[in-house]
Amino acid sequence: MAFAEFRPLDEKSLVEYIKVVPSLFSKLGNKLDGLTIKEVGDGNLNFVYIVVGPDGSFVIKQALPYIRCIGESWPMTKERAYFETVALKEQGHWCPDHVPEVYHFDRTMSLIGMRYLEPPHIILRKGLIAGVEYPLLAEHISGFMANTLFYTSLLYHSTTEHKRAVAEFCGNVELCRLTEQVVFSDPYKVSQYNRCTSPYLDHDAESVREDNALKVEVAELKSKFCERAQALIHGDLHTGSVMVTLESTQVIDPEFAFYGPMGFDVGAFIGNLILAYFAQDGHADDGNDRKSYKEWILRTIDETWNLFHKKFLALWDEHKDGSGEAYLPAIYNNSEVQHLVQKKFIEELFHDTLGFGAAKMIRRIVGVAHVEDFESISDAEKRANCERRALELAKLLLKERRKFHTIGEIVSAIKQVQ
Amino acid sequence: MAFAEFRPLDEKSLVEYIKVVPSLFSKLGNKLDGLTIKEVGDGNLNFVYIVVGPDGSFVIKQALPYIRCIGESWPMTKERAYFETVALKEQGHWCPDHVPEVYHFDRTMSLIGMRYLEPPHIILRKGLIAGVEYPLLAEHISGFMANTLFYTSLLYHSTTEHKRAVAEFCGNVELCRLTEQVVFSDPYKVSQYNRCTSPYLDHDAESVREDNALKVEVAELKSKFCERAQALIHGDLHTGSVMVTLESTQVIDPEFAFYGPMGFDVGAFIGNLILAYFAQDGHADDGNDRKSYKEWILRTIDETWNLFHKKFLALWDEHKDGSGEAYLPAIYNNSEVQHLVQKKFIEELFHDTLGFGAAKMIRRIVGVAHVEDFESISDAEKRANCERRALELAKLLLKERRKFHTIGEIVSAIKQVQ
Ligand SMILES: Nc1ncnc2c1ncn2[C@@H]1O[C@H](COP(=O)(O)OP(=O)(O)O)[C@@H](O)[C@H]1O
Ligand SMILES: Nc1ncnc2c1ncn2[C@@H]1O[C@H](COP(=O)(O)OP(=O)(O)O)[C@@H](O)[C@H]1O
Ligand SMILES: [Mg+2]
Ligand SMILES: [Mg+2]
Ligand SMILES: [Mg+2]
Ligand SMILES: [Mg+2]
Ligand SMILES: [Mg+2]
Repeated sequence: MAFAEFRPLDEKSLVEYIKVVPSLFSKLGNKLDGLTIKEVGDGNLNFVYIVVGPDGSFVIKQALPYIRCIGESWPMTKERAYFETVALKEQGHWCPDHVPEVYHFDRTMSLIGMRYLEPPHIILRKGLIAGVEYPLLAEHISGFMANTLFYTSLLYHSTTEHKRAVAEFCGNVELCRLTEQVVFSDPYKVSQYNRCTSPYLDHDAESVREDNALKVEVAELKSKFCERAQALIHGDLHTGSVMVTLESTQVIDPEFAFYGPMGFDVGAFIGNLILAYFAQDGHADDGNDRKSYKEWILRTIDETWNLFHKKFLALWDEHKDGSGEAYLPAIYNNSEVQHLVQKKFIEELFHDTLGFGAAKMIRRIVGVAHVEDFESISDAEKRANCERRALELAKLLLKERRKFHTIGEIVSAIKQVQ
Repeated sequence: MAFAEFRPLDEKSLVEYIKVVPSLFSKLGNKLDGLTIKEVGDGNLNFVYIVVGPDGSFVIKQALPYIRCIGESWPMTKERAYFETVALKEQGHWCPDHVPEVYHFDRTMSLIGMRYLEPPHIILRKGLIAGVEYPLLAEHISGFMANTLFYTSLLYHSTTEHKRAVAEFCGNVELCRLTEQVVFSDPYKVSQYNRCTSPYLDHDAESVREDNALKVEVAELKSKFCERAQALIHGDLHTGSVMVTLESTQVIDPEFAFYGPMGFDVGAFIGNLILAYFAQDGHADDGNDRKSYKEWILRTIDETWNLFHKKFLALWDEHKDGSGEAYLPAIYNNSEVQHLVQKKFIEELFHDTLGFGAAKMIRRIVGVAHVEDFESISDAEKRANCERRALELAKLLLKERRKFHTIGEIVSAIKQVQ
């Protein structure tokens, strides 16, 4: 066999690979004439090839045993491709409209073949920078989160299924450790990897490192992240892991998936929308002051949470007499108690969402990996001003999240930041 | 090989077994003359044989594929013996003074050979019923809990070690499910297994099944039990899992061990001391009003918690620059923040302890498995009165636990129950 051992592919060797893999070759109508292959990995970790022929197309994603954007000096297990595949299949099962189909997986090669999300699909973050409104985004992403989180939790699972799945995803520990470091640790200490818009934000970054109240809160979130196996979470659900058109929303790149706290996903998405919001002033120009676009982002934040929690509770109601073992129907047997437990559940999830969302915002401003929303603002002082406002809000949310009870209050808080 | 397949032993076949197992045979000086073997399993699940010869002794514990006290109609994996062994070894490693040494384990036979805790060791529960004061109990059990819980948590573990261990103990799911059912579910619903001191407590048991506020709280605890992998917990740390003399305290029977919330162990122990307290009035007689013994139990409750949390924090301080990844020293780098995180951690653990302890009390009064503390009170009405007071306190603790901040307040609350 030509590919019996792992080897990194390139645009040439990929053709050889496709030829010997029927599930891929057949997608191209079993021919290679007129094939174009292009590496497009703009992500941080992996190599992504778009393969298009006259009769079909797909995407190949290959994990190498290090972090692409840093290089071989930061090793990272290529087994992440296995967990990404398991997660893509599980999420695709519960939410087929918003997850690309997996055509092929090769564990030896750490290689996934999946549906090519053809143009005009673009990465959501790029759409947000360009100021494009996506009228179905909140509807779609709330459905993705409600379905994938509900159906992989003890609201649907038996504890037998749950522990089996939890144990399997404990194997994805290296990716969890990366999150632990870059989200929950590095921003709060001196680290060689941290950076910020210097010199403007040097003092702000230092303040983060000296804020005891913030450190207390981030410790609680880190414990939850490390210890609480609530549902199969995507683990990296920022606006760079979502591809969109005006009609379609597709969630890619769940290589960080594991059984963790639901709020980490919901928070990642909403936190990145908030970053997009604060970046808009840096993108405003004479032709477009971005004011109405900022309103659209705020509405989308509001709708994302509200639709999410409504859909989540609807699934709970639908399945309350089902297989889930968290709330047995013989115990939670009247509408008052059902209402009380749901209210309590959603309230905790809301506070987790705010906490994790805030932590994800902070790390994008003073940690190792920044977001294009801000990075694309070329005037450093302007960028720093945008970032500082986002940072102030994030610190408030992280420290005071239990004082907020509705997403409307969050939208107000965002607007109040000067 | 004579024992290549699982088979339940008896006093006779056990001799054949010992003969072919060098690690056991050698403990007896490689001879069988003068051997006495006695089955003493007074526990609920397994068979326990005491093997004593002129030159040595040990205990053999064998798990059968069902629950002993119920019978073959309630199957239960005999793999529990494997998890019990792993836990005994881990706990013995961190706390050798309070855990019997494992001499032998046979996975095929679901059989453990361990140190015989020779007389005058008795089960603590029996000592508490007899009114015996154990002056070192709080000191010893607090040490056991502080060591085993600290060293298996992220205060000591790297997340790599932690997830590996969590995954392994996910395999003990059947035993976890038994706890889920008998502690967190059955008492709050109609179940064929529930019983109570009838007719006296029929109404009290019904009240538990109709108490929405209680059900909301127990749901939160059940979620924590199922989802939060905080440390390797014993999982069944009641006063029947502790053997004592005036000088020695030994923790046995960790077959329910898994990575769960620390408060489940601390609560089990303290909750069972509270049950022992409320049973004393049923054991009082002309010769002994048990008043001073009740004071000793209250002091022991107080000391157990206070010593536990002091020892736990001392371990934390000792290892704060060590391998544990929850609170990195570069972040938690000043005494104020160190104090704040410890205070917050202990406060949550205290509330978990109260909640789980209360849930364990409730299930012993209206669930399937009762405790000898009460069962040995032959006058049913007297017993019911003792049980009712314990139940009232447990309901208060479960619902209002966040209002308590010191163990002294708990002792006061116990004394106030009429
Ligand atoms: N199924 C797909 N269809 C089209 N483009 C894709 C697809 N998957 C990935 N891409 C492109 O490749 C980029 C990197 O993919 P991603 O899965 O995010 O990799 P990484 O793990 O390195 O971040 C994406 O930003 C997107 O532009
Ligand atoms: N190592 C030991 N030394 C002496 N007696 C023991 C030992 N282990 C168990 N026993 C006795 O056997 C009884 C049942 O043991 P236990 O481990 O609690 O079994 P179960 O899991 O069935 O509850 C204990 O209550 C105690 O009396
Ligand atoms: Mg990506
Ligand atoms: Mg990725
Ligand atoms: Mg249900
Ligand atoms: Mg026992
Ligand atoms: Mg037992």
